[in-house]
Amino acid sequence: MTAVSSVDARTGEVVATVAAESTAEETAAACALAAAAFPGLEAMGRHGRAALLRAMAGALEAARPEVVRVADRESALGDQRLQGELTRTCFQLRFFAEVLHEGSYVEAVIDHAGPTPMGPRPDLRRMLVPLGPVGVFGASNFPLAFSVPGGDTASALAAGCPVVVKAHPSHPATSQLCFDLLASAVRETGAPEGTAGIVHGGPAGLGLVTDPAIRAVGFTGSLRGGRALFDAANARPDPIPFYAEMGSLNPLVVTPAAARERAAGIAEGYAASFTLGAGQFCTKPGLAFVPAGSPLREELARLVAGRDAAVLLNAGIGEAFSQVVATLRDRLEVVAAGPDPLSPVLFAVQVPALEGPLLEECFGPAAILVEYESEEELLGALASLPAGLTATVHAGEDETALPARLVTVLREKAGRLVWNGYPTGVAVGHAMHHGGPYPATTSALHTSVGASAIRRFLRPVTWQDAPQAILPLELRDEPPGIPRRVDGTLLTP
Amino acid sequence: MTAVSSVDARTGEVVATVAAESTAEETAAACALAAAAFPGLEAMGRHGRAALLRAMAGALEAARPEVVRVADRESALGDQRLQGELTRTCFQLRFFAEVLHEGSYVEAVIDHAGPTPMGPRPDLRRMLVPLGPVGVFGASNFPLAFSVPGGDTASALAAGCPVVVKAHPSHPATSQLCFDLLASAVRETGAPEGTAGIVHGGPAGLGLVTDPAIRAVGFTGSLRGGRALFDAANARPDPIPFYAEMGSLNPLVVTPAAARERAAGIAEGYAASFTLGAGQFCTKPGLAFVPAGSPLREELARLVAGRDAAVLLNAGIGEAFSQVVATLRDRLEVVAAGPDPLSPVLFAVQVPALEGPLLEECFGPAAILVEYESEEELLGALASLPAGLTATVHAGEDETALPARLVTVLREKAGRLVWNGYPTGVAVGHAMHHGGPYPATTSALHTSVGASAIRRFLRPVTWQDAPQAILPLELRDEPPGIPRRVDGTLLTP
Repeated sequence: MTAVSSVDARTGEVVATVAAESTAEETAAACALAAAAFPGLEAMGRHGRAALLRAMAGALEAARPEVVRVADRESALGDQRLQGELTRTCFQLRFFAEVLHEGSYVEAVIDHAGPTPMGPRPDLRRMLVPLGPVGVFGASNFPLAFSVPGGDTASALAAGCPVVVKAHPSHPATSQLCFDLLASAVRETGAPEGTAGIVHGGPAGLGLVTDPAIRAVGFTGSLRGGRALFDAANARPDPIPFYAEMGSLNPLVVTPAAARERAAGIAEGYAASFTLGAGQFCTKPGLAFVPAGSPLREELARLVAGRDAAVLLNAGIGEAFSQVVATLRDRLEVVAAGPDPLSPVLFAVQVPALEGPLLEECFGPAAILVEYESEEELLGALASLPAGLTATVHAGEDETALPARLVTVLREKAGRLVWNGYPTGVAVGHAMHHGGPYPATTSALHTSVGASAIRRFLRPVTWQDAPQAILPLELRDEPPGIPRRVDGTLLTP
Repeated sequence: MTAVSSVDARTGEVVATVAAESTAEETAAACALAAAAFPGLEAMGRHGRAALLRAMAGALEAARPEVVRVADRESALGDQRLQGELTRTCFQLRFFAEVLHEGSYVEAVIDHAGPTPMGPRPDLRRMLVPLGPVGVFGASNFPLAFSVPGGDTASALAAGCPVVVKAHPSHPATSQLCFDLLASAVRETGAPEGTAGIVHGGPAGLGLVTDPAIRAVGFTGSLRGGRALFDAANARPDPIPFYAEMGSLNPLVVTPAAARERAAGIAEGYAASFTLGAGQFCTKPGLAFVPAGSPLREELARLVAGRDAAVLLNAGIGEAFSQVVATLRDRLEVVAAGPDPLSPVLFAVQVPALEGPLLEECFGPAAILVEYESEEELLGALASLPAGLTATVHAGEDETALPARLVTVLREKAGRLVWNGYPTGVAVGHAMHHGGPYPATTSALHTSVGASAIRRFLRPVTWQDAPQAILPLELRDEPPGIPRRVDGTLLTP
């Protein structure tokens, strides 16, 4: 029996034993319990599940001081950040409650029986229904908003899918505490017992992905881990969708005009963005393309050198960061670096040398200035980058030609295009997209943040000539108060 | 150089050499041409692509007699069916033109900048954009509607994705003729040359799935072929979505009440449905669950025995059918069979013996009556079936309890639930869904027929704080005449 320990991220000390690693039997039992809960969770209906999500937000809010304290001990992310992350986590749960009430997400469509050029058409009614139990992998860098009570859990439960979460080993006590709070909301609202489950340990992760009861998986983590589990999900006798968000280089481009107009402001914003959360954001802008000879470099050198050394999420991440930095020091000019191995560090390189390890995400407070000599060189370099989650353009005030060319190239490389801003900070809302072409994610079609994240856990079903009593409420003649497309026309309530 | 020959399906005679199998270089060149066409096809805009689809429908209509003649020679499906299939194919192209004009499919969302509980939110605008070049695999059994000018091609082009079609070897002349007609419409509307491409031969198929330029694939065919190509798509350095529709058992259930009330009518409908198109529909209801001792069996015996032998799509399908029938003859009672090896045949089995090869799709005019003794036995058998495209319930006039239980089990097993009807015949429209959980398809989330088939070839992109001139027309302040969600509220034009 392998113990799962809670480690203080600042001291490296083991402060508690949280659980034992889940055995294969325990993992299978959690999945079976989720499968047993599926019909009951769906039967709660949209409004019943909205109440469940609100109760979960309420339970987390009620335990705010303890949640933040435990999460800070395990992640070293600091009180302010974690207060904000908890607010976001609760907002997200309540946001999906609103999505449920509004009801567009079921994509209800009614085509009444009638003639067509191919002969008579039967009465057809279509909507989205939940897939079934969903596995969720918590992320190291967001112990709340992308972990046990995070966006994958919120969107899966909203869809009507019970969830089994694989707790991240970097914050098992936070995971277990949040799980207990979610479970109390499950009991309070009368949802089925298996609505939410938790497992611990690496083998449980693979067990989750291959369990016959699991119908989809949400994952946030590394490219290596994500790809291995993606492959396992696809190798099943019955492949299931595996939605992995695996990080990104997030190129940021400063045009010559922008560099002339606002070098100081951009330097300040960029230094803050790539060191935010100790550089442990999947949206960290790791590459900044700047005109060769721009004053930006000197501005950044000054800003970065003065920054404090980071405390990273765990010892493994700290070691990996130190190694990557050592490799980069051998290849690149150092623009600025503090005295500590975990100090923020900024490198520089010219476009022709941008290759190999420079094109891999570095998790931690490091970034690379990529100096370009011409627009053509810049555009060529951007076109050869791997795809990512975001791409950012800083343009001059009245500049149009180069930005338009940049956006044409960058849209194929990213899921979000940021204008004169910074990609860190991913608002939860209807218009957000957090995703991108591979290797940013395994499914460029879907988002892991925002209202449409629920679409990952739903599938269409069409009822043909079904009597009213057999139809789901959303498809009956009596208007259910949600938007529907009827005989081709989108109708709002 | 391997020749690709057109074979008369009725005589087995080679009537023409259509092309040579595409070499690896030719396949790569077709994909590269598609990639080069991508920006231009997207730049045509929604209305420009709608014109392209309408021109394609017009070109096919203008060549109707020749298209039907060539398709009938290669498929033996008959003039009436192929006239109808061509009408459907043209309807489908024009239907997607309407989907483009209406514009909901881009899922345009605007969240204006404003305060949130987590601080200020930037201006975020999201819509779906095309993925890039799409590979399409034509199906043997629909030489028009699911082949070169079929639904995958129509929905991919509508999305803004150039298409490279792998022609089905069973109807290469039809494929080439249809391709030439599509290409004439491409020229006529000024679309880029690589908007549509064609390749021939098995190696070209694998080449298409693994070509770096191809961003998604639509496939209609067998489970074996589909799974092998799905695995290849997922094994790429950059996995791509592979949408395979791979057929289905399509269980049809007759409740005891329905069997009492309308045995003759159901027998007639069922015999017609499982023999339609010589039983070569992916929605063929291959298993009919009937109460033991029902008069249905005798009615069906009479109807099936009198039916003519079929001409199957090609010699390989004919041989495979004969082999499956021989295997089933060894295991099952024969309810009715004609004298010819390709005559329609109906078997019977009791629920406890329903296993192994009986749970595999048989392509051709064969079906199995599954006789049940009790409701519990029926529900248990349905729960253990593999998932499929459709499931059908025939219920008594005022019956409610058993149908409700059946639907609960069957919804998890199918993408379309048919009431007192037959699953063959898949209307093109907004409310249609043609898909289902694996092994019916590789992606239960998406459909290959109906308006939302376009969603397979689109991905979301969010623009953050972008100036109007950089935004796509659909996301600018000036209303573009399409439904949009603005600050959370769905607005219709």
